[in-house]
Amino acid sequence: MTYQSHYFTEVRNAQANAYAPYSNFKVGAYLRTKDGKTYYGANVENAAYPMSICAERSSLVAAIADGYRPGDFESITVTVDADEPSSPCGSCRQVMKELCDDDMPVYMTNHHGDMIASTVNELLPLGFSGKDLN
Amino acid sequence: MTYQSHYFTEVRNAQANAYAPYSNFKVGAYLRTKDGKTYYGANVENAAYPMSICAERSSLVAAIADGYRPGDFESITVTVDADEPSSPCGSCRQVMKELCDDDMPVYMTNHHGDMIASTVNELLPLGFSGKDLN
Amino acid sequence: MTYQSHYFTEVRNAQANAYAPYSNFKVGAYLRTKDGKTYYGANVENAAYPMSICAERSSLVAAIADGYRPGDFESITVTVDADEPSSPCGSCRQVMKELCDDDMPVYMTNHHGDMIASTVNELLPLGFSGKDLN
Amino acid sequence: MTYQSHYFTEVRNAQANAYAPYSNFKVGAYLRTKDGKTYYGANVENAAYPMSICAERSSLVAAIADGYRPGDFESITVTVDADEPSSPCGSCRQVMKELCDDDMPVYMTNHHGDMIASTVNELLPLGFSGKDLN
Repeated sequence: MTYQSHYFTEVRNAQANAYAPYSNFKVGAYLRTKDGKTYYGANVENAAYPMSICAERSSLVAAIADGYRPGDFESITVTVDADEPSSPCGSCRQVMKELCDDDMPVYMTNHHGDMIASTVNELLPLGFSGKDLN
Repeated sequence: MTYQSHYFTEVRNAQANAYAPYSNFKVGAYLRTKDGKTYYGANVENAAYPMSICAERSSLVAAIADGYRPGDFESITVTVDADEPSSPCGSCRQVMKELCDDDMPVYMTNHHGDMIASTVNELLPLGFSGKDLN
Repeated sequence: MTYQSHYFTEVRNAQANAYAPYSNFKVGAYLRTKDGKTYYGANVENAAYPMSICAERSSLVAAIADGYRPGDFESITVTVDADEPSSPCGSCRQVMKELCDDDMPVYMTNHHGDMIASTVNELLPLGFSGKDLN
Repeated sequence: MTYQSHYFTEVRNAQANAYAPYSNFKVGAYLRTKDGKTYYGANVENAAYPMSICAERSSLVAAIADGYRPGDFESITVTVDADEPSSPCGSCRQVMKELCDDDMPVYMTNHHGDMIASTVNELLPLGFSGKDLN
């Protein structure tokens, strides 16, 4: 449950696959499951901007489609090319809330190697969840 | 910048217009501008769930389409029929981050008249914004 | 049910309210209800691109939040600044499918005054709807 | 470029991984690349409905995050448990428009083994694309 230096290499590899012709803002995500499997995520933009999908969700959805279930995830690392590590957008935080443990680490990095660590719960305090629907 | 009791009546009126045939979870939003105008919001669901839109965004988008600009908003009040006041989802927090002041009050209520007060910044700490894109 | 020349003026007024700092691609929508009320829509972008909302949905959601119900709409007109009139994105077509009659006219225009007329059904053939969920 | 019977088995396997606790409507997608690789997709729902992601996009985003680029795809097959094969929602059609050839086959199936064949272009006529942004 601690940030490992090789996560940085992995997430940079993931970022290389971003498809971001509209923003030119490439984002990568590196998702690890509790049983040691890894998924890459990258943002996939669309000319109709609202149909773009972020890197974090890209990795989580790939893992679910591969058979993993909510609670199976150990950590997610995100990277961008910016002076400060960017945080996940609100939609990605909501998807983490649905699929990840509240205390799952979220590691935000950038191309300088800076890193900020947080958790799902810290990033989405008072988070909306399935319990609210009942 | 303080919660007024009539906000509760207004947001319940907004909620009555929700179109929620799939979740049966009706949400209302009541947005006030700094110059005293008000906008109702309600969730508008879709058989293709991802194309649903939440009440909070509904009110904010109506105000922008009517000519208001980021920073013009005084407060937003949300209501649901649930034992606890529900908080905005991550996407709505992100839209608030774009369009509202960081310290704008967000009032979460329910049909019992309970109320929790927060702010945009508290609900989306380390929020992603246009500054991150540069 | 026929395109009126003043729709063009109205939709250009709506477009003026677009908030599109990321794409600089302003879109306007002009929605008419069967009982003669009108709603303006404009695209409202977000630094997190997927949380952007299009002009067409902006107008439809405002009308629903104001109390109109599916089937209450007479026509929608869209405009852009482009050599050819742009068509609605897939998400907006899906929202029209949910909220509008299948044969409701969709008028696509541009700043030159060009106009293409279509319908919801023509723009989303074999459209997914609530019937598919049962 | 023709529907193969084993696609049906593959897409049913993909569907089994759907996470659909809110709609109970499980959707599977089976994406093939031109160089013979395959990706599974499944819908991944969220308590906040708009943050749900469909099966078709799930498979396409996984492929892009894995390094494939627009135009690299041979076909997509979708399945649902319904009397009629369901078609992709508007958002998924828009993502196909961005990432797939206009004439790429889209095979819609159901649990009875019924199949309807279409193409990206037929499902999103007059489709909005990056060309419209210029």
